[in-house]
This record gives sequence, C-alpha cells and structure tokens, in this order.
Amino acid sequence: MALGEFELIERYFKRPPRRGDTVLGVGDDAALLRVPPGQLLVAAVDTLVEGRHFLDDAPADSVGHQSLAVNLSDLAAMGAEPAWALLSLSLPEIDEAWLTSFAAGIQTLAARSGIEIVGGDTVRGPLVVTVTVMGFVPDDQALRRSGARPGETLYISGAPGEAAAGLALLRADRTTDPDDVLVRRHRYAEPRIDLGRALRGRASAAMDVSDGLLGDLAKLCAASGVGARVELEKLPLSRALLARSSRHDAERYVLRGGDDYELLFTLPQQTDAAILAGLQALCPVTRIGVIERGSGVLCTRGGVAVDVPGSGYDHFA
Amino acid sequence: MALGEFELIERYFKRPPRRGDTVLGVGDDAALLRVPPGQLLVAAVDTLVEGRHFLDDAPADSVGHQSLAVNLSDLAAMGAEPAWALLSLSLPEIDEAWLTSFAAGIQTLAARSGIEIVGGDTVRGPLVVTVTVMGFVPDDQALRRSGARPGETLYISGAPGEAAAGLALLRADRTTDPDDVLVRRHRYAEPRIDLGRALRGRASAAMDVSDGLLGDLAKLCAASGVGARVELEKLPLSRALLARSSRHDAERYVLRGGDDYELLFTLPQQTDAAILAGLQALCPVTRIGVIERGSGVLCTRGGVAVDVPGSGYDHFA
Repeated sequence: MALGEFELIERYFKRPPRRGDTVLGVGDDAALLRVPPGQLLVAAVDTLVEGRHFLDDAPADSVGHQSLAVNLSDLAAMGAEPAWALLSLSLPEIDEAWLTSFAAGIQTLAARSGIEIVGGDTVRGPLVVTVTVMGFVPDDQALRRSGARPGETLYISGAPGEAAAGLALLRADRTTDPDDVLVRRHRYAEPRIDLGRALRGRASAAMDVSDGLLGDLAKLCAASGVGARVELEKLPLSRALLARSSRHDAERYVLRGGDDYELLFTLPQQTDAAILAGLQALCPVTRIGVIERGSGVLCTRGGVAVDVPGSGYDHFA
Repeated sequence: MALGEFELIERYFKRPPRRGDTVLGVGDDAALLRVPPGQLLVAAVDTLVEGRHFLDDAPADSVGHQSLAVNLSDLAAMGAEPAWALLSLSLPEIDEAWLTSFAAGIQTLAARSGIEIVGGDTVRGPLVVTVTVMGFVPDDQALRRSGARPGETLYISGAPGEAAAGLALLRADRTTDPDDVLVRRHRYAEPRIDLGRALRGRASAAMDVSDGLLGDLAKLCAASGVGARVELEKLPLSRALLARSSRHDAERYVLRGGDDYELLFTLPQQTDAAILAGLQALCPVTRIGVIERGSGVLCTRGGVAVDVPGSGYDHFA
C-alpha cells in the first residue's frame, strides 16, 4: 500500500546505478542482485523509532545517516563489504523538506560506503525507519561473536560512550550546539567498515557495541563460551567525554552507552605489533582486557575486582 | 537497542536450522548466507502498520502470516525461490501470548515456503512489522514488469478482490465470522509462489497486485512502454464475492482491491494450450485483456470503451 499516489522510493531514493552487481534496482517487485563467486551474502536489519532512537526534533539528515549507519555497523562487525540496502519508511505525512533532507543523509553515507539503495516500501503510519543492509565477505573470513578463546586480548575501537553522552546532552537541553563533538557523534557517528575489513582473518571474534560495552561483551562471552576481564583503568575516556562529564560519568557512558558503532574484538595474544600498528592507522584501538575461562564479565580496577551492576559476572560461580 | 533484556528474536523466532545454505542464522550481528552459483539474489521489503494493513483486533497469527505473505508475493512476482527472511518488530509492549501467536503465523507460512528466519530486530514503539525477504532465481529467468509487448495476452491469477472485500466486511462489523471465506482471504491469503516459478521463461512480464489491478496494471504498462485493454466482462468475479456484494461492487473490488497476492502477467499470443493447462493446474488463471501500443489502461465492456476512473488511460492522447 503506497503512500498516496506518490512512488516515494522512486522519487526520493532512486539514483543512477553505480554498482555493476546490481542487476535490477528500485522499481520492480524486488531487486535482482549478483553476489560475487566465493563470497557469502551478509544481511542485517535495524529499526529506528522516533523518540527512542532519535529525538522528535532531530535533523532529518541525521535520521537518514543513523538508519543506514547502525546497519553498516553490523556489516563492519562481520568484516563485510557493504553493497545494497532496502529502505522501509513509515511516515505520518509527506513532508517534502523532511524527505529531501533524510534522503541526503542516507545517500551521502551510502555513496561513501559503496551502498546502493535497491528497493523499499513507504507506508503511512508513525515515524519508523527500517533499513536492511546486504554485503558480502569472502567465504570463511566472516568475523563472528563465537570465536574468542581464553588468553586472547580484548580490544575496543575509537571513543565509545560519546554518542550516548551526546544524546544525554540533547535530552537535557534541546538547544545544545549542534556542532558539539558529542552531539555530532550521536547524530553522525561513522561505522567502522575499514576496521572490520582489516580484522578479517585476524580477529578471533568481533561485534559492534549497540547496547553498551558491558552488555555486549557479555553476549560475546556467552557466544564464545568464555569469560572476560575488563581493566577499568584501561578504558578509553575521550577528551570530549571528560570535558563534559565527571570521570565517573564518562566511565558509565563507555560501559553502558551504545550506538557510536565501535567494534569490540579479540586478538590472539601473539598478534604482531605490525598488525596492531596497521589497525591503529585506521582508527584508535585500545586493549581493555583479556578473555578467560568461565563465563560473564569481571571488571577490575588496579587488579582488584569491582562490582559493576549488570556486568553479567556471576560472583557465586 | 533491544526490547528490555529479552532477546526476543532468539526467543520467539529462532528455529533449528533447516536450510543447508544458511551458514549463520539468528544470533550474531548479521546472517551469513550462501546464494547458489548461477542464481541471482532476489530481495524485497514490506511494512505493515496496525490500523492500516491489519485491524487493531486482528488475530496475531494472521499478522504474522500477512507480514511474510506480502513479501513472498514479491518473490513470486519475480519467479523466485524463497529462501530467507529478516524480521523487524516494533512493539508497544511484550505480550507473550501475542508474540507466540504471531510467531506461529509467520513460522507456519515460512516452513511451507522454504523460508528460514535468519535475523531481525525488536524495538519498543508503535506496532509496526517489517519483513525483508530474500530468495533466488536462475540468472536471466527473473520475471520483470518491463517485458510486455503489444499483441500479448494479459492474465490474472485466482480470485482478486476477495481480500479487500474481506477487510471491508470486518471494518463494517468486527464480529464477522472469522471463518468467512472473504475474511480468511484478507487474513491468510496464499502467495502464488508455484505460479511464479512456473511462469519463468514463459511470461514476458509479471507483477503482484498490491494496490489494485487497475493501478498495478498501469505500472506494468508504464514499465513496459505499452498500453493495455481490459475486457471488464472477462474479470473473474468469484462466487464468494458475488454472494456478498453486487456485481458492481464485486467488479470494483477486483479492479481496486489489493493484497490477495494475485499475479498479473502477460504471455505471448502463441502460448501453447499445454502450457496454459499447466498453469491452470496450479491455480485458476483468467485471460482478461491484451497488451497494445500506446500507454495507460483502456477498459471495455462488450467491445465498447468504458470510463473507469483511475485507469490511467489518456482519452486525449
């Protein structure tokens, strides 16, 4: 059921074809796509709801950016090459200025990431944006959550927590400077596609942080059948975070904040310094702990166990 | 951002793997899927909004069925083999009975269609269901909207209009017998996967009827650069439709109703009777007109042009 008589997807989201492997894009009942030989298809979907994932006065281009970025982050976490996206938009009304800005936000990131929007659906309803992303990864080189082994080293990319801090700033004061570093990290954080690609064949496990470092690390541990020890004093607390919040709050944002699309990953202990330098050349990566036998996440400060609520660590095990 | 601490997709929608080409299903950042060599990936997305695509008291299993069926219909219209689905659920609350019934509805159709749910997302928000479906089709055998040529014959499958009539019955009276044929066609219509498969290499163009036969035929004509003549007296008016509505209303449901997942397709004039008999063995197909030079849709009754509003026929051309 299209929105009015407008073919919104064609009108706002169809672009001249760029990818040779898109056989048929927007405009038919479905898209026809060619996955290269020797590659697996990688597919994920994420939904953003107004008021929950973005504020009701969020710039439309940031909503467009976020809706694709959160999905690209899933591809990055698998080490995949981005290729195609399907866009489903539930909209309360046809607001041409909003749609134009939303389209600019999603298409700018799409072009930069090698993504082509090949189809979609528009319906009238509450403002809900769902993007499906597809990409590919060489057979047997996909990064999974399940490969972490005791003795391996745990890393986090970039500056986790900044997006959550930016959202908190906006919730407290909608007039916060839109050019504030933290606000921009909430609205326009960049998925770590290059890092994911570089981790292929190197990381034993990887996932993106979407529900907070602690909670997501607990999932990685569960999938791998291992435990993890996080050294709190090693957590990267960015200058921007520390400029706007106490050390305690900054740490809380890092441990509990999501949606800045950072990657959590494990490397064998004997990983070459040259490999690490190669990763660092793409973006900062910080060693924050180790993988251990057992289950759950143990946090330490100065070598002493610290009780962090929600860490999933079973102190009675 | 998951819904509470529940991993709803894992809990309600994960099933033991059935497909050998699903390398990794529900539970990681993305699914890993193997498209067979020599096949194109076919992908589509559709969104259902409460109150618009289904009534607010619709049985949850029918919402589950519909959310996948509307997508499978897009695969059928391309002649594709169903393979995988991603499910995104925006839910106002965690209602276990509703989720269990919804899951039963979508999984029953999934199992019957060879579909495996390989991932998804759940968020808290208004009730909105988005399904992405993926399948494949042999290279160069996909059915498109753009292949219809003047002189070809136009067909429609099954009994279009029944789903729209069923929805109208329910809107008029929520207590309508749930076993009413028309009500069941609205809630549990079956996508024409087998017919789509049989049309590969035979139909010159195909699409599924989702916005009404007339409007969708106009889109097929536009994509093919042709016009069409529909002989109104040839339209299949089902016994169930005629039992509940006047001939005039029945015709209106057929011309304007969507979402019973019927396929509109064109065959070369010289198509073998044996081929047509083969199609009829799968489901009723009715010849309703011809493809002509020009543009838009001309409706006739007894050979005389009839003005049907919204047919897209340009009488001044």
